[in-house]
Amino acid sequence: MNKGITLEILDTPFITESGFIFEKPEAAYKTWGKLNRERNNVILICHALTGHAAADEWFPGIFGKGNVCDPEKHFIICINVPGSPYGSIGPWSINPSTGKSYLNQFPDITVRDMVRFQQLVLDHLGIEGVELVMGGSLGGMQALEFCIMDSRVKSAVLMAMGKAHSAWAIGISHAQRRAITNDPKWKNGSYSRENGPADGLAAARMMAMITYRTPENYETKFSRKLQADSDQFQVESYLNYQGDKLAGRFDAHSYLILTKAMDSHDVSRGRDSFEEVLGNVKIPVLVLGVDSDLLYPVHEQKELAKLLGNAEYSEVISPYGHDAFLIEFGQLQTIIQAFTDKQKYIPINHDTIKSI
Amino acid sequence: MNKGITLEILDTPFITESGFIFEKPEAAYKTWGKLNRERNNVILICHALTGHAAADEWFPGIFGKGNVCDPEKHFIICINVPGSPYGSIGPWSINPSTGKSYLNQFPDITVRDMVRFQQLVLDHLGIEGVELVMGGSLGGMQALEFCIMDSRVKSAVLMAMGKAHSAWAIGISHAQRRAITNDPKWKNGSYSRENGPADGLAAARMMAMITYRTPENYETKFSRKLQADSDQFQVESYLNYQGDKLAGRFDAHSYLILTKAMDSHDVSRGRDSFEEVLGNVKIPVLVLGVDSDLLYPVHEQKELAKLLGNAEYSEVISPYGHDAFLIEFGQLQTIIQAFTDKQKYIPINHDTIKSI
Repeated sequence: MNKGITLEILDTPFITESGFIFEKPEAAYKTWGKLNRERNNVILICHALTGHAAADEWFPGIFGKGNVCDPEKHFIICINVPGSPYGSIGPWSINPSTGKSYLNQFPDITVRDMVRFQQLVLDHLGIEGVELVMGGSLGGMQALEFCIMDSRVKSAVLMAMGKAHSAWAIGISHAQRRAITNDPKWKNGSYSRENGPADGLAAARMMAMITYRTPENYETKFSRKLQADSDQFQVESYLNYQGDKLAGRFDAHSYLILTKAMDSHDVSRGRDSFEEVLGNVKIPVLVLGVDSDLLYPVHEQKELAKLLGNAEYSEVISPYGHDAFLIEFGQLQTIIQAFTDKQKYIPINHDTIKSI
Repeated sequence: MNKGITLEILDTPFITESGFIFEKPEAAYKTWGKLNRERNNVILICHALTGHAAADEWFPGIFGKGNVCDPEKHFIICINVPGSPYGSIGPWSINPSTGKSYLNQFPDITVRDMVRFQQLVLDHLGIEGVELVMGGSLGGMQALEFCIMDSRVKSAVLMAMGKAHSAWAIGISHAQRRAITNDPKWKNGSYSRENGPADGLAAARMMAMITYRTPENYETKFSRKLQADSDQFQVESYLNYQGDKLAGRFDAHSYLILTKAMDSHDVSRGRDSFEEVLGNVKIPVLVLGVDSDLLYPVHEQKELAKLLGNAEYSEVISPYGHDAFLIEFGQLQTIIQAFTDKQKYIPINHDTIKSI
């Protein structure tokens, strides 16, 4: 998934909310299309927990000519968040003061830190305006904080999350973290990259996969069918596969850091009331819920739309639960396109477009 | 919780569906009230996954004078299921052929095995008729199989389960088992009783606790409150406590055996279609759902009521999700009482009551 990813060392320090300083942070991002002369025909896509900057891989149905993310009209960018294993500074990055990977020394990252990190990249590229920021789940949390923290943002699409991480969602994160830190290969965070707590990470992913879908979806897909020549249910085999697959592509430190970042999500933290903070967001926002989302039920999105200063709510109808924002591209493209068509985005003058 | 529990060695062998023979199985059970001369004023309560024979402890609101389980009218019995750590034959029982605990040699147990084991106890006590069998979750699965397998049963109350364990529920069980077997102290099942995989069992319980309740309930109880003098959310501390508490009172082997038994639940297995099997149950059955149950959603109970030959459906309204059947005693007592009042139970003649 590194195809077309730009890796860059930023020359501006990144300082986390907790005060940790990365003097020259690495940033991984991917772009599509060209920046116009005014440097404001920008769509920013924020990725979710185990995602990465190659948004065209996990958000394909929104990309392409005539779609929301049309590279002929827009400069589209997706920036890997700090703490992730996919290129931006993370627990395996080298700490210049020790010459070794940060691991347990890597600081807590909040959703606001993720926004501030991405702002450094936007600044670095000289972005003057963001027509649209969008994301689902952890990506939606970032997009919401962007609405609050960055006046360059002109509109937003927030999917499958709420104004703050709920107690239930925190509980789910916590149980998953426990499954990871229970793994003897966790070694209190000092594992080698080749021999990490894969079993713990797999168990955590299996738990997550259950909350990402719905009983109906599992029933349709697996019912009580057994694996051939085995007394194992197909659903067990599927979860093993999904767990091991994530363990093969992700990292336990990152999983802890990023789930804690999700738990930190609370737009009222250290600010005013939710009503104040969200009411002051006056840009047009589309809040999208999935009717079958168990992890972030639609009442959270409805509440968000109600509290935001200028938001509308729409619902994806799907049997896929929380995962629908990575699956139901037909509906997403139609609903988001209808929203963006109403916005007064910069008319594209191809003469003014230049490469960055 | 051993107060008033009878421990008895049965002189009839218990043979599991898989063909494993326990020559002289131990059985733990608790009774309340007196058996009448006809030995048929019986209420049988079936316990759930981590439950035990002391039903008055976990089902208190149904017990007592004038309530469904009135010991002045009924002979009430609850029998600990095989595989459990609470007194009946289980993985820590001594295998007479080796002189050691069964552990990994303990056979798979199905819900039907649980019924057949309880039938041995009922036979041993000379029970001629069961006015009412009832249970929730795994207890409900047993009660349903009792309706199919035992002509002594005259009516049933089935709570918070369905005609078969769903793919989603199996997936949840599976992820929990993985959390247990990942624990290095699991030692492939050969751990000592004093030093078992407590961390894995705790992680499994934490996952289960999430599915037993609802987002709304967690939000009301914890919201985003932190522990005093800590950056840990209260919900994290709560789940740690619940996980460790279960690890202190339960056993990893039993958790694997009994969750697999739940996964085995499928009344059509090796029989006719669901329509045939359930349609042939002609005794009056009350099927009870909880409106907020995520683990066994109400459509499963509605379907069960529809398929059964003579059933009615009623719903408990509760924010507590699946756990409501262990909490909402006010509603349960009222709804179940209304059902039992309609049944033509044996008129109690105190002259005919005798002790067993």
